[in-house]
Parts: sequence; structure tokens; C-alpha cells
Amino acid sequence: MNGHRVVVIGGGFGGLQTVRALRGAPVEVTLVDRQNFHLFQPLAYQVATGALSAAEVASPLRAVFKRQRNVEVVLAEAVGVDIDKREVQLGVLPTGEEGRTLPYDTLVAATGSRYSYFGHDDWRPFAPELKSLAGALDIRDRILGAFEAAEVEPDAQRRSAWLTFVVVGAGPTGVEMAGQIAELARDTVRRDFRAADTRQARVLLVETADRVLTGFTPSLSRRAYKALESLGVTPLLGRTVVAVGPESVSIADADETVDEVPARTAVWAAGVTTTGFAGRLAAATGAATDRAGRVTVDPQLTLPGHPEVFALGDMIRIGDTALPGLAPVAMQQGRFVGRVIRDRLAGRTPPTAFHYHDKGNLATIGRSRAVAEIGPLRISGFPAWALWLGVHIVYLIGFQNRLLVLLRWSFSFLTHGRGARLITAPTQTHQSVAQPPP
Amino acid sequence: MNGHRVVVIGGGFGGLQTVRALRGAPVEVTLVDRQNFHLFQPLAYQVATGALSAAEVASPLRAVFKRQRNVEVVLAEAVGVDIDKREVQLGVLPTGEEGRTLPYDTLVAATGSRYSYFGHDDWRPFAPELKSLAGALDIRDRILGAFEAAEVEPDAQRRSAWLTFVVVGAGPTGVEMAGQIAELARDTVRRDFRAADTRQARVLLVETADRVLTGFTPSLSRRAYKALESLGVTPLLGRTVVAVGPESVSIADADETVDEVPARTAVWAAGVTTTGFAGRLAAATGAATDRAGRVTVDPQLTLPGHPEVFALGDMIRIGDTALPGLAPVAMQQGRFVGRVIRDRLAGRTPPTAFHYHDKGNLATIGRSRAVAEIGPLRISGFPAWALWLGVHIVYLIGFQNRLLVLLRWSFSFLTHGRGARLITAPTQTHQSVAQPPP
Repeated sequence: MNGHRVVVIGGGFGGLQTVRALRGAPVEVTLVDRQNFHLFQPLAYQVATGALSAAEVASPLRAVFKRQRNVEVVLAEAVGVDIDKREVQLGVLPTGEEGRTLPYDTLVAATGSRYSYFGHDDWRPFAPELKSLAGALDIRDRILGAFEAAEVEPDAQRRSAWLTFVVVGAGPTGVEMAGQIAELARDTVRRDFRAADTRQARVLLVETADRVLTGFTPSLSRRAYKALESLGVTPLLGRTVVAVGPESVSIADADETVDEVPARTAVWAAGVTTTGFAGRLAAATGAATDRAGRVTVDPQLTLPGHPEVFALGDMIRIGDTALPGLAPVAMQQGRFVGRVIRDRLAGRTPPTAFHYHDKGNLATIGRSRAVAEIGPLRISGFPAWALWLGVHIVYLIGFQNRLLVLLRWSFSFLTHGRGARLITAPTQTHQSVAQPPP
Repeated sequence: MNGHRVVVIGGGFGGLQTVRALRGAPVEVTLVDRQNFHLFQPLAYQVATGALSAAEVASPLRAVFKRQRNVEVVLAEAVGVDIDKREVQLGVLPTGEEGRTLPYDTLVAATGSRYSYFGHDDWRPFAPELKSLAGALDIRDRILGAFEAAEVEPDAQRRSAWLTFVVVGAGPTGVEMAGQIAELARDTVRRDFRAADTRQARVLLVETADRVLTGFTPSLSRRAYKALESLGVTPLLGRTVVAVGPESVSIADADETVDEVPARTAVWAAGVTTTGFAGRLAAATGAATDRAGRVTVDPQLTLPGHPEVFALGDMIRIGDTALPGLAPVAMQQGRFVGRVIRDRLAGRTPPTAFHYHDKGNLATIGRSRAVAEIGPLRISGFPAWALWLGVHIVYLIGFQNRLLVLLRWSFSFLTHGRGARLITAPTQTHQSVAQPPP
């Protein structure tokens, strides 16, 4: 050990690849994360609809790095950084201790993004987000709780509000979520209820842009739109959510006419921004940030004037370029940063600029439906769905999870069932499980 | 439909079998439960140690009865009963509505038991119980959080308190739990940590009786004791817990000398009592209750003077006889009650008294270790463990869960790993994940 200390903040796709790329390198790596697991975020929406269990899309970080002896994992939030002292400030430790600092020689910030709620954090309790495992489990409890409420609600109008689901944002996550809720209502739980007809459920997908999946070419957006409609989703394009409350979502169209839709369940998947740490890092280094909070880094993914500080993933832009907030981007950047650190320590000349190799873009809409864009290729329908399945199985962490997910999906495909339809929040005796916390 | 309304309260082993036994009968069954799933409680402890996922030991009630068209499921707590009006009073519904009643022609109470905490409900926040899925998930977060805390705790004495686990009660659940925590610390997570030596973990198993597993013959108790010791568990027999706090558990011996053991994690599995509904049912019918709150029923499992009201499982005693609180007892009683209801409606003479067919008793202690008592047979070690595995797989609800659990166990056995080691409580920024709620 030469004792070169690398602190990596964030165990998402970017952070994980950085640490892996440092395997066997003469460094002491400390990986800091608020959670004890890596979340395979592209499948979090399947937890939210009971198709998969939490453990099938999340791998304990310590298990991932069990055999990489130069890695230490610390379960804490990074709350600040002292660039001159080269120290990261940690939040509350699992012991309850506060105020500890972590010295570094090289810092890698990979803290990702979160949803902005268009600046309305007060909407958050009524429309949880799909970025975290806790959020996905919360959404699962609410969706299943809404069906339960519809079953015992005698008033038709109120029942209809329990069977109305609003998904905000028609990017890949919003599209996948809306498709799955529609399938859940119209297919999976259809025969589970006696009084409520879950086929009457309405799933509204609200998007400010004039098409769904703006990251894809317009022709694939049109195919996705049609696939959503055939699943029973109502895409509302060119509309903006202007208010979210416990019993309704208000949606404005281009003329600013506002429609207050009675709906008891909303899911947020629109408008990303960076985490608090990104802002603190930018302030500490004097780096510029854009409107979405992304920190401007050099082509080598370092902060201006601070070659010892890297940042990557969807918390950065490289000069004027903001790459899409996708797992492959963060993973390639993680491997790049690992390479630069190794080269520097070995006295080799490291690569001077990161280049993204776009291998394509995939989104699934529901059973047997997906769209894919690979270079000049445009694929939709079953072939795209098969590709989506394959890619997601391959990139899942851990052989056991791959096999279990494959099995679960096979069961779901054959039986139209979903095994993990549990409401796991502690029983609330004096409060509805489907209601947001006070 | 002749409209005979059967209300079954509780979707545990007894309630589930009652409902199943009424399949195709000319009745309208309403199954009332606070949870939307049946918990396979004998495996809840495996969720608490990350060996299994919640969805693998819990089946959505609606999915279980999807094809049984005479069943309606209501997600609510039964808070009272009006014996004269023949109505069950429901607590808060998923809509938030309160005060609804459910009329019945026949009532079946199967509300089970909970832990009594020896009358000290104030200990509950510091020593969660293993009866519910929420409890098991809470325990999982605490055990994993305690290892995380030990990893960052510089003080040796404090670290030792984080690595001390107290399990209260050496019945099957307590024994299984203690064995699994010891295996987790000494084997599974051993290489996960860098600073903390988890092999130093102490697992104390406190039992008031002078042997473990008092439901078994003394020779098997001795074998179980030795198996526990070889796993690294310290059984403390003839001792009683007299206080539980956030940082210690106080244990008194026969001389009433009290030892305050610094321990940050405790699990409760001792001293069962019945739920509030059992007491209300006894009060409403004038039935006697014993010290553990069990309601005295007639040999036909009906309340005295109320042939239309059945009760079963570990909430009852039949005359002076309290059968062991085991799943097979409740299941046989459920089938018996279903049979009596069917016979009555068909004008046949129903059986007049329930008889328990004791097929044996099983408890596992850890990897390859178990004890079994089948009639005159006493088995321990690997054969008992293989039997335990087989029985638990067979009795799990649902083919998919059987296969998934079998796979998980095979992986765990081969790799010494546990796939579901997640801390899933929402991130608490200003509070330790391992600390009990205020």
C-alpha cells in the first residue's frame, strides 16, 4: 500500500465502476453511500408494481466488494467537502456520531440526480419519486392500497378517484411505470377484486413536451405512444402539472386552462436536478453549474483547477455538453476515471478526454412491447422487448439475482401474475395505508 | 348462493385453511385481515437475517383466493364484535373510512397471538418482535445497521455493544433467530467489514426455563443447546430479562442478581398473549380466558352458547387444554371448522369435537443442524435439517415461492451468502438507521 487515498461518493453505476476499475491498484478506496446497497435503478419501477422484490434489484455494496481488499465501505451521507484540506464531511454515521471527516488524495463525486418537483417540494409527499428503493416500496404500498380502497368505497365518484393514477413525466421511467400500472390494473389484479372493476382504472401520463420518450427519434416516440394507448394509458402531451394534493392533480394545457383531476395516487418521474453535494462541490471549487444543477467539468472529468477531484454521471456536464442521464454513460465514465487514477499513479500518461460510446437506447412499455435505437437501427415491438430483457439481465449485479429475476419474469409472463404484491408498511391502525403521511 | 355469510377474521394458517375448506360451499365468505398477505410465519426469521425476501415468505391474500369466487377480502382490523346483532366492527378502511360493520351468520375468529413483553410494552421499541413481516424487516435493518455501526465505532467497548445481540426466548423462533445471527456474524458477513471483526459478535439467548426448546423432549433440548454453542450462541438459561433500553438489556438470574449487558440490538420472541380481539370476543360471549388471554371454547371450537361463533389457533384453549401454538394445529382446526360449517348447511351431522393429529415437531438451529420429534422418533443433525427443509418448502404457499426459496437456500448453502441483506428503511439524514425510533 502506498496509501494513496481515493474517496468515491455514491455507489450508483458510476461510483461502482470507478471502484471496480481500481481493483488491485495501489490505492486505499473508501466508498461512501447513504444506502448499504447498489440499486439497479432501471428496474426500480418493477419493484413499485410488485413484479420484483427489493433484493432482486439491489445488491449489498459490501457483498459486491467482498473480494476487492482495497475497498472500505462507509454508510453515511457526504454532506460537504473542504477542497483545501482535502476532506469530505460526513453526515450521521450508523453509530449516531456526527461531524466526522474523511481525508482524500483523490476524490470522485458520483452523487447522481434526484427529481426537482419543478421547485415544489411540497408536492413530494403526494407524488413519491422512483429514484430510490424506499420510493419504489412507498409507491408499491400506495398503488396496492388504492385498489384496496376502491374495493371498499361505495361512492362511484370517489371510487373512480382511487382508480385514477397520474404519472408525471414521459421519459423511460415514466413510460415504463405507466405501462406497468395499466397492466397491473387491467390484467394482473383484474380477478382479485369483487366490488371494484380495476379495468376501469385510468392511468394518465403527463408530459410537458409534445411527445413521449424525447430521448428517442420521433418515429419511435409515435410507436411508444401507440403501445401505451393499447395498454390503456392516456398520454397527456404538452401539459404541465401545476398542483399535486392528497386527492387531486391539477394539469394545465398550452392555453393554461387548468383541469383538476381527482386522483389519489401520483408518481413523479420528471425534471431531474442534482443532489445537494453537487452544489457544495461546485461552490467549493468555483465550478459553473447549469440550470439543472449540473457541475461543469473538464474533458478529463476533473473540476477546473482541481485535477485531484473527479465528478461523473448525471451530476455533471462536460464543458457545454450534457450527456443523457443513462447508466451506460455513468459506467463508462467510472471506468475512465479509474483508468486516469491508475495511469497517474503508475507514471503513465492518462487519457486526456472522456468520449462516450453510444451503444444505443432502450425503453420498455409493457409485456412484449419496447423501443430500441441502436446507431441507425430503429426497433420496436417484440424484438426490442427481447433485447431489453437480455440487456437488463446481463447488466444486473450478481449471478443469483440474474437467475431469480429471469425466473420471476418467466412466471409473470406465463401466469400474468406478480409475486411481490405486498403492502409492507407497518400497519397503521388509525390511518389509511394509501394516504400520504401528514 | 343461499347468502349464508361467513366472516373469517385473520389470514394466518387457521383462517386460510377455514376459507379454503369452504371452497364451493353455498356461502359468502369475507376474509378480514390487517395485512394484504398471508405470512408464512415459520420463515419470518429468515427475512430478519436477509436470507429470504419478504415476497418469498408472504403471499397476497387476493392472489391466494383469486379462483375461489365465494371469497371477498377486506383489508382492515376487526376491532370489535356485536354478538347479538351478529356484526363485526371494522377499524380504519383503506379509504380512511371508520366505523363500518360487517354482518355475519357464522363468525370464525383466527386472530392468533402476539408477544406480551412480560407486560412491559415500553420495551417494544428496543426489542422488535418476529411475529409480523414489518417486525422482521425492522429487525433486519437493525442487525445490519449494528454491523455498520461497529465498523465505524473507534471505541472498543462501544463497538462490543454494537456487536452484542440479545434474543429473548428460546422457543423455536428464538433458537432459529439466535442461530442465524451467529451464522451471519461468524460466516456470511465476516469478510464484508474491514475495521470490525464480526466474529467477535456475541449472541445471547435468554430463556426463563432451564432448557431451550421446552416443546421438545429434554434429550433434543440438550442437542439443540450443543448445536447453538457450536455456532457461537451463548444460551443463558434460568434467566429473565428485567429491563430493555436503547443501549442495554438487563438480565436477572435465579438469585435475582441483575446483570446489565451493553447491547444495541435485541429481538423479542418470548411470552405470547392473544390480540385485543380475543379479549373482546371473550367479553362479548362471556367465555373464560386464561392467563395468556386464550379464550375457552367448546370441543367443536365454538364459543359457549354461541354455536355460530368459532375460534381457533393459538388464541384458544379447548376446555382446559391449550394445544401448542403451532401452524399444524391452526391448519387442522381451520379445516375442521370449514367441515362443521359445510355439514351444518348441508343438513349433515357435523363432527362434535376437534382432535389434533400430532405429526411431529421440528426446529432448525442453523446450517445443517435441526431437531425433530415424530411420534417416538428423535432425530437431530443433518437428517432432521433435511426434513425441516422439505417440510417448509412443501408447506409454503405457491409454486413460485417454493422454487424461489429452494434456489435462495441452495445459493446460501453453496456460497455462505445471503442475498437480501438490505437496509430498506427510508434514509434518515439526522438519525442513525440502527437506533430505535424516539
